[in-house]
Amino acid sequence: MKIHIASKILASNEKKALENRKLLKEYSIFTINLMGSPGAGKTSLLEKTIKSLVGQIKIGVVTGDIAGIDDALRIERLGIPVVQINTSGACHLDANMVFNSLLDLPLNAINLLFIENVGNLVCPVEFDLGEDIKAVILSLTEGDDKPLKYPQIFQKSSILLINKIDLMPYLDVSVNRIKEGVLSLNPAIEVFEISCKTGEGFEEWIKWLQTKIS
Amino acid sequence: MKIHIASKILASNEKKALENRKLLKEYSIFTINLMGSPGAGKTSLLEKTIKSLVGQIKIGVVTGDIAGIDDALRIERLGIPVVQINTSGACHLDANMVFNSLLDLPLNAINLLFIENVGNLVCPVEFDLGEDIKAVILSLTEGDDKPLKYPQIFQKSSILLINKIDLMPYLDVSVNRIKEGVLSLNPAIEVFEISCKTGEGFEEWIKWLQTKIS
Repeated sequence: MKIHIASKILASNEKKALENRKLLKEYSIFTINLMGSPGAGKTSLLEKTIKSLVGQIKIGVVTGDIAGIDDALRIERLGIPVVQINTSGACHLDANMVFNSLLDLPLNAINLLFIENVGNLVCPVEFDLGEDIKAVILSLTEGDDKPLKYPQIFQKSSILLINKIDLMPYLDVSVNRIKEGVLSLNPAIEVFEISCKTGEGFEEWIKWLQTKIS
Repeated sequence: MKIHIASKILASNEKKALENRKLLKEYSIFTINLMGSPGAGKTSLLEKTIKSLVGQIKIGVVTGDIAGIDDALRIERLGIPVVQINTSGACHLDANMVFNSLLDLPLNAINLLFIENVGNLVCPVEFDLGEDIKAVILSLTEGDDKPLKYPQIFQKSSILLINKIDLMPYLDVSVNRIKEGVLSLNPAIEVFEISCKTGEGFEEWIKWLQTKIS
């Protein structure tokens, strides 16, 4: 069995991703392609990260959803430039969608761009968007067996954020099993254990971001 | 923007789904295509449902994952015929994969077949597998904004199971908002609030299944 994405589509995406990468480099923007399941906490992560870095790093956001503008409204409330992509059914963002969004952002006023992908632990990883790094956020409630069941996204990400660790006492889940699974697939991945609700673990994550931008 | 699934692929899938439907009808097997995000609780639902119906209804399971055989092992432990599909990267099951699995099941000894789809709230709904009904399981931890962000799966499902309601005290989530969202998309959907951990809500769900089979 093969994936159903035609190689032609991927080749055309690859070309556009190179354009995006060039454009983002020209403007010295560090770009993170943020992926994860529905409800893993992608938008919550952005909200808390933005609040932590206000006045320090100029952030921009592209947010992808199949439908709706909830996520963009949440980011906009924080005074951050944001473009909402609606994929009209598509299960991932592609480089062309992102290119069109970049044209609507004040690129001169951004040092750090988050591209919040469609909630999906499978498809988004197939599509290079022109980002510097891919990051995956997995909530503890999704279970500790996920890395080995959805290997590709963990293999191709530079960062794993394990979210919702505040719920640990109420779950039968092992953070160590998540880490072991992920590290067996990708020994170089950096892992942050966080709670977007309580702020636990954010200090380390924010420090990491600061080193990438400064 | 369009979805990247070629119409040719969908047409060929449709044809095979009809074959599956015919075969399942010949054997009087009621078939549920169970979909949901990674970690929503698909396998846990099957485990608890199987235990509740042991000796009453003959169950079979087809379980789909990108990689690994964890889910099939969990079902097999319960003495239930099960076939594991590994999609090798594909983000959904298709009718052809299911057809090949049906050939490996003792169809004469099954009245109720669960097809556990790949963990994904987007792509699986595009593919008819030949099932009688589609069911979606959403865990409370995924957030109450999901129906309107991922509308199609809720529009096309006959049943919604809201899982992990035991975690309600620890979450900022409204079950009513989930229900309102889902019912605005699909007024005919039947909603069950359950916890695969504590068994809450299972009585109603099991009764519903019994009426479908008897």
